[in-house]
Amino acid sequence: MNARSAAPRHELIADTALALLAERGMRGLTHRAVDEAAGLPQGSTSNLARTRAALLETAVRRLTEREAAVLTPREMPQATGGAEPSAIADALSLALHRYLTRHRQLLVARYELALEATRRPELRALYDRAGAAFRAPMTAMLTAAGSTAPERHTLGLIAWCDGVLFSCTAGQFHTAVPTRAALRTSCAELLDGMLRG
Amino acid sequence: MNARSAAPRHELIADTALALLAERGMRGLTHRAVDEAAGLPQGSTSNLARTRAALLETAVRRLTEREAAVLTPREMPQATGGAEPSAIADALSLALHRYLTRHRQLLVARYELALEATRRPELRALYDRAGAAFRAPMTAMLTAAGSTAPERHTLGLIAWCDGVLFSCTAGQFHTAVPTRAALRTSCAELLDGMLRG
Repeated sequence: MNARSAAPRHELIADTALALLAERGMRGLTHRAVDEAAGLPQGSTSNLARTRAALLETAVRRLTEREAAVLTPREMPQATGGAEPSAIADALSLALHRYLTRHRQLLVARYELALEATRRPELRALYDRAGAAFRAPMTAMLTAAGSTAPERHTLGLIAWCDGVLFSCTAGQFHTAVPTRAALRTSCAELLDGMLRG
Repeated sequence: MNARSAAPRHELIADTALALLAERGMRGLTHRAVDEAAGLPQGSTSNLARTRAALLETAVRRLTEREAAVLTPREMPQATGGAEPSAIADALSLALHRYLTRHRQLLVARYELALEATRRPELRALYDRAGAAFRAPMTAMLTAAGSTAPERHTLGLIAWCDGVLFSCTAGQFHTAVPTRAALRTSCAELLDGMLRG
């Protein structure tokens, strides 16, 4: 972990929390460990986020910001006018490949927080709000592409994306990240099955 | 957690470890917590699995056994002779729906262990061996169904299954578990896209 002295302190703390979650899991995330790993005086993390719940919420908020930069919803077809399945497959495969090849640490932290959210209602609400921001445009995009069951197809497409990310990070395919071309073909097949049906 | 006095002690300990993982996460899994939750004398869990690594391996082995009973690979078409896409969709939707509606605790424990495996090579190897037992029959099944890219399609189908299970347990659709019919339709569309391509 690099202490990034140029970043605002709250960002440094949140990024360090995410890095610790990925490297050491929930057991490794403590206020003191964040202070140490970030090279900050003891007590700095507690000043920003007094409780464990607050620290986890800080991590989820930062995850959402960073994920938006990786998944770049502005590259998605609905935002640029078109909704051809091939354009959707292009954009999704680019985003997934970028996530898998450059941000694996963020992915592991993401799944740690999702699991913790099954036990913490406030974290759950925060995580769900972040997810909804991705879900609504995807439903609109699938509707524009001709889906006759946009809600079900949204679940299917998000589940497929989540499954690819999870399987290729922590699951059975952790050593076999697909090429962007393979992701594109697979995504196009999925959309084809949905939209031709 | 119920102390199941009829089960062998190692099974009781492993099941209690899985239940604790689901309820409290990695931080909540300790030898002492297993003893207490299982209603066993202090030291019982340490006798069975001395180190934390050994306790986690015990949990993964038991997860694999219990998952085999939920996913029942023997119900899969390749084991019963047919490989029609509709038969595959029937079998997979049944297995996924059963997992999501009756074994959510096992699913959360599964993802906790998968994430921990990103940090523990021995656990990774064990988890991967268990996964391979599901992967090989799926590749055979897809080949029999006419797939022209069985390896890529296996990744796609397993990722889709994993994504549905994850999204509907810890992700964006945790309150919206699909019906078996919706899962069947979605799975059939995915296979259709793969096999018609």
